[in-house]
Amino acid sequence: MEKLQQLIKQKHAYSVEPNRKKNDTLVFALGGLNEVGKNMYCVEHEDEIIAIDAGVMFPGENLLGVDYVIPDFTYLQRNKHKFKALIITHGHEDHIGSIPFLLQLVKPDKIYAPRFAKALIEKKLQERRMGNIEIILIDSSSKVQTNHFVFGFFDVIHSIPDSLGVLINTPNGRVVTTGDFKFDLTPVGQNSDYQKIAFMGAAGVDLLLSDSTNSQVKSFSISEREVAQSINEIFSKTQSRIIIATFASNVYRVAQIVDAAIKAGRKIAVFGRSMDRVMEIGLKMGTIKAKDKDFINAQQLNYTPANKVCIICTGSQGESLAALSRIANGTHRQIKIHPGDTVVFSSNPIPGNAQSVSGVVNKLTRLGADVITNSPLNSIHTTGHASSEEQKLLLQLVKPKYFMPMHGEYKMLITHAQTAQEVGVPKENIFICSNGDALILRKGEVLRSNTRIPADDIYVDGNDATGLSTAVIKDRKILSDNGLVAVIVTIDSRYNKILVRPNIVSRGFVYIKESQTLLKEAELLVYESLKKKMEKKVTFGELKNTVRETLEPFLYQETQRNPIVIPVILNMREAMNFKK
Amino acid sequence: MEKLQQLIKQKHAYSVEPNRKKNDTLVFALGGLNEVGKNMYCVEHEDEIIAIDAGVMFPGENLLGVDYVIPDFTYLQRNKHKFKALIITHGHEDHIGSIPFLLQLVKPDKIYAPRFAKALIEKKLQERRMGNIEIILIDSSSKVQTNHFVFGFFDVIHSIPDSLGVLINTPNGRVVTTGDFKFDLTPVGQNSDYQKIAFMGAAGVDLLLSDSTNSQVKSFSISEREVAQSINEIFSKTQSRIIIATFASNVYRVAQIVDAAIKAGRKIAVFGRSMDRVMEIGLKMGTIKAKDKDFINAQQLNYTPANKVCIICTGSQGESLAALSRIANGTHRQIKIHPGDTVVFSSNPIPGNAQSVSGVVNKLTRLGADVITNSPLNSIHTTGHASSEEQKLLLQLVKPKYFMPMHGEYKMLITHAQTAQEVGVPKENIFICSNGDALILRKGEVLRSNTRIPADDIYVDGNDATGLSTAVIKDRKILSDNGLVAVIVTIDSRYNKILVRPNIVSRGFVYIKESQTLLKEAELLVYESLKKKMEKKVTFGELKNTVRETLEPFLYQETQRNPIVIPVILNMREAMNFKK
Repeated sequence: MEKLQQLIKQKHAYSVEPNRKKNDTLVFALGGLNEVGKNMYCVEHEDEIIAIDAGVMFPGENLLGVDYVIPDFTYLQRNKHKFKALIITHGHEDHIGSIPFLLQLVKPDKIYAPRFAKALIEKKLQERRMGNIEIILIDSSSKVQTNHFVFGFFDVIHSIPDSLGVLINTPNGRVVTTGDFKFDLTPVGQNSDYQKIAFMGAAGVDLLLSDSTNSQVKSFSISEREVAQSINEIFSKTQSRIIIATFASNVYRVAQIVDAAIKAGRKIAVFGRSMDRVMEIGLKMGTIKAKDKDFINAQQLNYTPANKVCIICTGSQGESLAALSRIANGTHRQIKIHPGDTVVFSSNPIPGNAQSVSGVVNKLTRLGADVITNSPLNSIHTTGHASSEEQKLLLQLVKPKYFMPMHGEYKMLITHAQTAQEVGVPKENIFICSNGDALILRKGEVLRSNTRIPADDIYVDGNDATGLSTAVIKDRKILSDNGLVAVIVTIDSRYNKILVRPNIVSRGFVYIKESQTLLKEAELLVYESLKKKMEKKVTFGELKNTVRETLEPFLYQETQRNPIVIPVILNMREAMNFKK
Repeated sequence: MEKLQQLIKQKHAYSVEPNRKKNDTLVFALGGLNEVGKNMYCVEHEDEIIAIDAGVMFPGENLLGVDYVIPDFTYLQRNKHKFKALIITHGHEDHIGSIPFLLQLVKPDKIYAPRFAKALIEKKLQERRMGNIEIILIDSSSKVQTNHFVFGFFDVIHSIPDSLGVLINTPNGRVVTTGDFKFDLTPVGQNSDYQKIAFMGAAGVDLLLSDSTNSQVKSFSISEREVAQSINEIFSKTQSRIIIATFASNVYRVAQIVDAAIKAGRKIAVFGRSMDRVMEIGLKMGTIKAKDKDFINAQQLNYTPANKVCIICTGSQGESLAALSRIANGTHRQIKIHPGDTVVFSSNPIPGNAQSVSGVVNKLTRLGADVITNSPLNSIHTTGHASSEEQKLLLQLVKPKYFMPMHGEYKMLITHAQTAQEVGVPKENIFICSNGDALILRKGEVLRSNTRIPADDIYVDGNDATGLSTAVIKDRKILSDNGLVAVIVTIDSRYNKILVRPNIVSRGFVYIKESQTLLKEAELLVYESLKKKMEKKVTFGELKNTVRETLEPFLYQETQRNPIVIPVILNMREAMNFKK
């Protein structure tokens, strides 16, 4: 995809005139396309930009030292006078997580969010001492009006309460974005508003943006009601302690576990920071229904009989610092596994986490726990995203003229596009986009813009969103891929003379044995180049450049690698001056 | 169920006052509940009755000599001045098949039917020389207005083109009936009108009647598009002749097979009367797309290469007289199986037909044919009826206040009721009814009527719908279950005297050996009773009754059977007179 993006950039570099006209409406993503996470979609018309969602992505293992990846806010910073509103569809991190970073750089005039997301954002902002920002509450009956846009909302089912899809009435046509959604014909909690969705379809939707996360999963997803039954069944059969891990963000699931525990006469102990937070908000909102007496703390655990205990904790993804992993490692201060304990993973491992989950399962089993993971036989977990048949149903209800699959990696977007074609959207009306690609909506027609909007991955180390760390991270990535080569050149600037032959030190570049000859040759090469260069008077910068320009092509040619080359010029004159 | 119906009758026999009021709207079935077939649902308000559908049921094997089972039209005959309209939802026999019988007895003011059904009904009426009856064409945009009702229509997917669901605006609320339907997210041909269905839901539906045929089938049904792919695959792989059998009524399937054949460069030969009829109408309607040159006749078959032949025929259910069965039996005049022929069943055996289908498959295989039947691995057939998840989707879209499952046996109705509960219809708002049970719709509320409407099974032998044959058939049923006992009594009426001891002959009642003593005793018993009776002057009828009243309890007591007792009184005086 990077290659493709480069090709697109090159192509655009040659295009003469932007094809965007003044009265066009733009639709583009700053994040969420060709990736799972950091969702941020924008609509722009004349002097207004409205963003929908502002998520983070958790870095892959190849991003060393990166805490978060966030969308590129450059375009919003450049157009900050246009940035009228940020609208949040629901409270998951990949939709709200970059709000604190965004607000450091550029503030929308208004921020709108549904109930649960509002509570989570406020909590998040308080924790970062940004508690003075106002979040305006919206629900499916709300209407948000700006100069050029009118936003309406519709209930969708997702794995967190108060999830909304958005209808955007633009001057050039109607756009619908689903947010994250699934259909569940027998839901627990909020239902999809079939009638409103179909009504938009009847009224005519020009462009649909729809969640592609599970487009490669065939058939309908399992109903949350079935999961509830499975969990209740486990609770009714089990006599030992039950330790159950799930996504804290899946509030309905946490609510169901609490229900099942209370029904089975068990007291609930909660472990894990995010689980604590969700339990607090969920109880306040009424999504989780329990009384104070239903909960016990770590001390009370010790004198509660095994068959009266339910421990709800984080760590369903095998995250090394989460409660369940520490329990499995025997490093949890308050909980030790008792042989016979039943440990339930009400979750599926996200692809990258399969191994760490499996590690935790093995450790728990070795400690004598009876571990239950999700399988087609027990249905103790279901997804929050529409699989292909649900995507078809949405397409049938909305009947969009144009379609842009969103939220997902390239293969997911492509599969979703095929699904849309099967349901009858013409191929030429389907747009597979990358972050930064803009669609032009012009009088009910959609075309691609020939210019791009900056939309790189921005790496955040700690809490700094200024993007400075992005360069650092990129260096780290090169270091981690190719290592470094330091060239120490000792000169005397008075005589414009090299005092000692250049000395090359490498780390993470080549094995020492093979490096012997190579580095010797390299030292010689640098020496010759520098000598030649220093025939005239030169600056330190020129010397450094000479080192790089000599060494980089040579090393690449010899090793097909591009280590970071660090020229270090030691000036003996200064050194000696210093000694004085 | 018969017992239950009797109980209900008894219960109602004791009820004093009908709970139906003058301004109520009635909804009831004359056929289609607790059975699969002979669908006929009626709405009644004051001086108007409108019937929806008038189907036949094909008799089970226990109905000897019965050609059709039709709904009981008694109520319509009694109220013929009220019978304003018959509205047909689609052209399958279980929805249109009893029209010719109905019209013999009572004529609605108007008959409405969608395009395909209209063509099939007109064909049917012409064949019975009733071609002068007008059928008014309707489609999903039609509106049918009577004094009290307004009928609207919506497109549904079923295994025949032009299938409609019906919205009935009554003076007491909105009723929706689905007709036969399924959802297919990637349909071939007509699509479901999701928007209209959801719109009715948004407007508020008081009572929903929905197709229960496949309520016991979990999950979504296979898309017709997948079936098309499977059929095309068979055509692309096969080199031999292809003989393919399917339901003639499934016009889309026939159209797909024709498509696949033409694509594969094969000429089509059609065998079977109903297949001929559907091909003719399908071609005329444009549902089946082919030219004259794509077809060959039986003679041309002989000099067409094997890999250029596609024979489409009836007999997918192993019906003994259908083309495929005759081919399998070697009794077809024009087609013999060649070793290597590929025979495809694009169908599933209806439960009762599994054995006969299996018989045909065996015979074909023995003749050297390669037989392909539907299986989860090849998807060469799919149903026309909504399975449970599609029923849920319909319920979610329509959101009815009250629900009455229709079309199906008791277990199907019950399962559909459970499904509705899962989707959120309150249990007390769901009505499981029998034919003849009436629901009262009163200002948006639904309650059960405490009176019943006559709704027996009416058996038709040949083409007589007067219901006379029903008695004959009932006798046949008793004969087949219990046999007959004929009692020949020879008297001389002049002397009021029995001339010969009664002679009893039985057929299909008891084995001869065990009958010896039993029948001897019976003869004696009859003799004694008749002697006593004839002490006074008696009529022949009284004598016959005496025979029956004596014999029936005795035989039941001795054998727990109720054979038909036929007293035959021979009067010797007349016999002798005759001789003169």
